[in-house]
Amino acid sequence: MTIENLSSNRSFGGWHKQYRHQSESINCEMRFAIYLPPQTALGEKVPALYWLSGLTCTDENFMQKAGAQQFAARLGMALVAPDTSPRGDAVADDEGYDLGQGAGFYVNATEAPWSRHYHMYDYVLDELPKLVESLFPVSGERALAGHSMGGHGALVLALRNPERYRSVSAFSPIANPVNCPWGRKAFTAYLGGDTAGWEEYDASVLMRQATAKVPALVDQGEADDFLAEQLKPEMLEAAAAASDYPLQLRRREGYDHSYYFIASFIDEHLRFHARHLGL
Amino acid sequence: MTIENLSSNRSFGGWHKQYRHQSESINCEMRFAIYLPPQTALGEKVPALYWLSGLTCTDENFMQKAGAQQFAARLGMALVAPDTSPRGDAVADDEGYDLGQGAGFYVNATEAPWSRHYHMYDYVLDELPKLVESLFPVSGERALAGHSMGGHGALVLALRNPERYRSVSAFSPIANPVNCPWGRKAFTAYLGGDTAGWEEYDASVLMRQATAKVPALVDQGEADDFLAEQLKPEMLEAAAAASDYPLQLRRREGYDHSYYFIASFIDEHLRFHARHLGL
Repeated sequence: MTIENLSSNRSFGGWHKQYRHQSESINCEMRFAIYLPPQTALGEKVPALYWLSGLTCTDENFMQKAGAQQFAARLGMALVAPDTSPRGDAVADDEGYDLGQGAGFYVNATEAPWSRHYHMYDYVLDELPKLVESLFPVSGERALAGHSMGGHGALVLALRNPERYRSVSAFSPIANPVNCPWGRKAFTAYLGGDTAGWEEYDASVLMRQATAKVPALVDQGEADDFLAEQLKPEMLEAAAAASDYPLQLRRREGYDHSYYFIASFIDEHLRFHARHLGL
Repeated sequence: MTIENLSSNRSFGGWHKQYRHQSESINCEMRFAIYLPPQTALGEKVPALYWLSGLTCTDENFMQKAGAQQFAARLGMALVAPDTSPRGDAVADDEGYDLGQGAGFYVNATEAPWSRHYHMYDYVLDELPKLVESLFPVSGERALAGHSMGGHGALVLALRNPERYRSVSAFSPIANPVNCPWGRKAFTAYLGGDTAGWEEYDASVLMRQATAKVPALVDQGEADDFLAEQLKPEMLEAAAAASDYPLQLRRREGYDHSYYFIASFIDEHLRFHARHLGL
């Protein structure tokens, strides 16, 4: 396995680094970014928060705009941000911003042409943490978070794999994708027309059925343009009520869908994860 | 005078807003961004830190990447970020990233074709604060800061107008532009071949002659790729020693020229300005 270091920036006494590697689960090169807090300088292993970004994003949006590194440095937590899809001329794509490259939706696609590379679910669940934990002073204690499409991904991965994550959080997640335009478009393409299979990738469906329960925190801006049509946090709340799920969902007056919203509350998310990671 | 609100995002209990207006000093439309902290919600007037960005930047880089809003919110300080040059099809430009649009160098250009629009010095010194203080709950207590080309601009404006600013700070400033490739290229184009006029825009020359003295803080990364050839902080240090100038210049081991560096120390810059602004 070859891995290439693309950039290194000192940040809050630690390091932000980008890497490119050949992914087995995705069948092409993938890029990710990692923030290693100062505690790792002496080889100390730290837990990691994996961050899944939203539509059109790469590994860079969160690392450049969320302002999370200062809190990760203080708490002693690594941050890992994968890209949001496979990329490249040989990778299937679509003209829409909400399908194809930059819009992997954290599923394992079963339909051609997407099934050749679009396996973001397996990549985030298995390959990326295995790689990170083998290369860096990062322990197997994991938390998961994300924004919008990445909030959907984080909730789905944690709900289906509660043994892998100590906690999960999301900003403005697509909470009920089987029931919104973004989700229906992506799932039709990636998973095919049989909607029964879609429910494995729907946080509201999964939370309603949950037995093992990863603590969950969700922040949703009330001035978010996508709130009513695409995000539907009320469906997640109803699911949590039905299964007595430990979900804390907060509506934030005046906040929108942007990184200005994420930056305003990222410290609370990192402290939430730090508590569950035993930091 | 017409001014158009282009965007509004809630941020740390305050507001980030972008505006476009017809600039008298620049003779075309200009865009700027402002962060209004929560203290202004009730109409309380707050002091402002004006931030000048570096080559290729717009009003957005600082607002999206520096993570300054959280500290501005806590301290009760507005942040104002102008664009780095005039823009548009009718505005002179150059193929290089270091001349023309995105590279105004905070001078008043005297040479054609630049002299028609490139008056960033007047814009930042007079027009922008006048506009901001007339439209928003922002007082006339001002501080000034910037990065790289903007660090040059901040130091020059404060050194030439000590009565206008309480404090000045810079990250990785172009400290002696008459003596580096970026500065010589820009000054030749904007100010002409007579180098005597260039010295009015050189922080190291001005600091050496300074009598009225605005307290200055400079941070410089030691792993900055531009350090030796373009930035030359040692010239600023020598000037400060010669005139007994209140300059604190810190070299930061391992840090580069990026916003990862700025974000790591922006809190110290805001607290420095807050002290001098009486916050």
